[in-house]
Amino acid sequence: MAEGSSIFRVGLLGHGTVGSAFARLLPDQADRIELITGYRPELAGVITSNHGSFDELLERSDLIVELMGGIDPAREYVMRAIESGRHVVTANKQLLSRYGEELWHAARTHGVQLRFEGAVAGVVPVIRVIQESLAGARIDRVHGIVNGTTNFILTEMARTGTTFQAALAEAQRLGYAEADPSEDVDGRDAAAKMAILARLAFDTPVHLDQVRYEGIEHIKPDDLEYAEELGLHLKLIGTAERIGDGLSVRVHPAFLYPGHPLASVGGPYNAVTVESDEITEITMSGPGAGGPQTASAVLGDVISAMIPPASTPPTSRRLEIVEDVVSAFYLHLEVADRPGVLARIAQVLADDEVSVKSVVQKGLGDQARLVMVLHPVLESRFAAAIHQLTRLEVLRSPPRAIRVLEEEFG
Amino acid sequence: MAEGSSIFRVGLLGHGTVGSAFARLLPDQADRIELITGYRPELAGVITSNHGSFDELLERSDLIVELMGGIDPAREYVMRAIESGRHVVTANKQLLSRYGEELWHAARTHGVQLRFEGAVAGVVPVIRVIQESLAGARIDRVHGIVNGTTNFILTEMARTGTTFQAALAEAQRLGYAEADPSEDVDGRDAAAKMAILARLAFDTPVHLDQVRYEGIEHIKPDDLEYAEELGLHLKLIGTAERIGDGLSVRVHPAFLYPGHPLASVGGPYNAVTVESDEITEITMSGPGAGGPQTASAVLGDVISAMIPPASTPPTSRRLEIVEDVVSAFYLHLEVADRPGVLARIAQVLADDEVSVKSVVQKGLGDQARLVMVLHPVLESRFAAAIHQLTRLEVLRSPPRAIRVLEEEFG
Repeated sequence: MAEGSSIFRVGLLGHGTVGSAFARLLPDQADRIELITGYRPELAGVITSNHGSFDELLERSDLIVELMGGIDPAREYVMRAIESGRHVVTANKQLLSRYGEELWHAARTHGVQLRFEGAVAGVVPVIRVIQESLAGARIDRVHGIVNGTTNFILTEMARTGTTFQAALAEAQRLGYAEADPSEDVDGRDAAAKMAILARLAFDTPVHLDQVRYEGIEHIKPDDLEYAEELGLHLKLIGTAERIGDGLSVRVHPAFLYPGHPLASVGGPYNAVTVESDEITEITMSGPGAGGPQTASAVLGDVISAMIPPASTPPTSRRLEIVEDVVSAFYLHLEVADRPGVLARIAQVLADDEVSVKSVVQKGLGDQARLVMVLHPVLESRFAAAIHQLTRLEVLRSPPRAIRVLEEEFG
Repeated sequence: MAEGSSIFRVGLLGHGTVGSAFARLLPDQADRIELITGYRPELAGVITSNHGSFDELLERSDLIVELMGGIDPAREYVMRAIESGRHVVTANKQLLSRYGEELWHAARTHGVQLRFEGAVAGVVPVIRVIQESLAGARIDRVHGIVNGTTNFILTEMARTGTTFQAALAEAQRLGYAEADPSEDVDGRDAAAKMAILARLAFDTPVHLDQVRYEGIEHIKPDDLEYAEELGLHLKLIGTAERIGDGLSVRVHPAFLYPGHPLASVGGPYNAVTVESDEITEITMSGPGAGGPQTASAVLGDVISAMIPPASTPPTSRRLEIVEDVVSAFYLHLEVADRPGVLARIAQVLADDEVSVKSVVQKGLGDQARLVMVLHPVLESRFAAAIHQLTRLEVLRSPPRAIRVLEEEFG
């Protein structure tokens, strides 16, 4: 930390999509981070591969965030930061899948933290979970959808029946694919990520060159058509698994049965499933890329380097506990089978400003029921309406209400 | 650590389902943990609430694992362990949802780690992810299925149309429900877990008594029937969300639309979705309970307390990289539309011991195609068969093959 102050100085390498999102996020969150850690994070400076002096930035930084990508000069800068005793946070999958061992070794030797959550699956916390939460489990297999571009393209092809080229163009239009998408669509990007996951899950050195990979350029619309007929989902799947005393690491398109935890992961999302005897399996999913998302993963790593481990910080905010919230409801009423009942009930609800979204009348005679879905309403108001309803003699039993989660509310 | 040795002594409180699973898991994993951390973990002793001396056990332990459950004497023992400078790992949701603040404060004051991944959602690493990975995000909402018993019961009721009572009996028979299931089915167990998650996600003290909860005892088969008609899924959902300057924490049954990340979480599984502007949303799922699973989460916490943070350990195993693996394949062949083609192709495949699981003939004339699914086979053998196939003049274009993930293989 800077002498005589409580400032924590973060030197940033790289100012592309993720770098610039990180440079915005850090000051936005500075107040909160100061409350949590006791230190106020500040950007000590930003350099890119052709602008700014690394030596000067290193001198005035407590921690280096490397978001340049590529090997040169990222490899040299990360190594020099470690050797000078700075913690490093990076999202550089190429670097770690090729030169990870030398960097991890240097970090252990110099007693600094080298964190890299952003390198695989964006904000999906698969690195921390494999490396820390699952340290006590003997992992048998890791399956992952670790490239959002290809998952978006395959989802589009399945949804619309379009060709690979057209779906790729759509992905580019929406910002889910780069102008040069070759490392994404040929599987090499996913291979780098699987090399890193395999290294962590199986304590075995894995170099990118040891990962077999195949892309999705050759997938045809009628392959997807076939999948739909059989209820299968086509995904670009990365696999790292123990086979006897060996380890297989590979990336290829694969059909999944509907029950597979990765089958329902659509669009640009990423997901990783980890299997072991002790834990059965756990699955994590979320946005796999995007500047703000990856920047958030990077910032989580920065905060971890600032804070003592597993110290639950004091409460900093005292949000008031809210008792009354807005919910949509399903309402099941056993009613007398006679004219005017629905009108009567609707009136009681309307008196409390509870409005009906849909209603179905079911059964006859002493089986007659009304099943309704109501628009979102303050729960206190709903309770008042229910109280009025229970007083109606047309109800044969107390009303039954269950909430309906509507993602646009709450 | 014990003086002059590389032994790390773990004192265990409690010997129920999770405690005894932990006592088995620790020696099983001791070799690996020694490789990762440099210290060999050993069980210093086990006491229960009515057997053994806590003072003696504390004296000879570097870390205390508390798996007794309940408040007395767990609260006193955990506090005394912290005050005597020992790290503590606990899975006690009742304790933390009622007395968490005093324990977290004591841990910060005494500079020890208090970890509790096992307290919520078993091996699903939601505590670590909210507290560490997402420290840089401003969380807006947490939704969780955090009670496996009720999720199993609701899944059974939806699947079979049975009553709550019958599904509960089935859950008890399979070991997914306790003999006294009241805290599970009335929502109180989930409420305790949501109090802990809300505290971590919103930096606000939340006591169990501040969580509104409702259980599933009143759910009727025709509620599930209604859900199925509309394609909805009924779950017991815990919610913690920011509403203006307030916080609402609650547990109740709710219908979910099929696209919701929690809708497909079935059986005894748990899952938690965290939403924020920065990250969009991430979802984690896995087995929510079970002795071995929760014990694995506890052991992950113990290892984290033994190891310097974010130090990627040296590779300890050198598994050989396997190139040739067993896969099932989909095979798409554009063929000449004439008699005997299928027989010819099947013979070529059989010559390389590639066996056909299903085949569909599609189209006529120059649209004729065979779409096959093959039984799992060594990929080298499959490649040899494909090589033979390409030499057949009945093929109008090169064969197209895509892997099929069959969960029983690989």
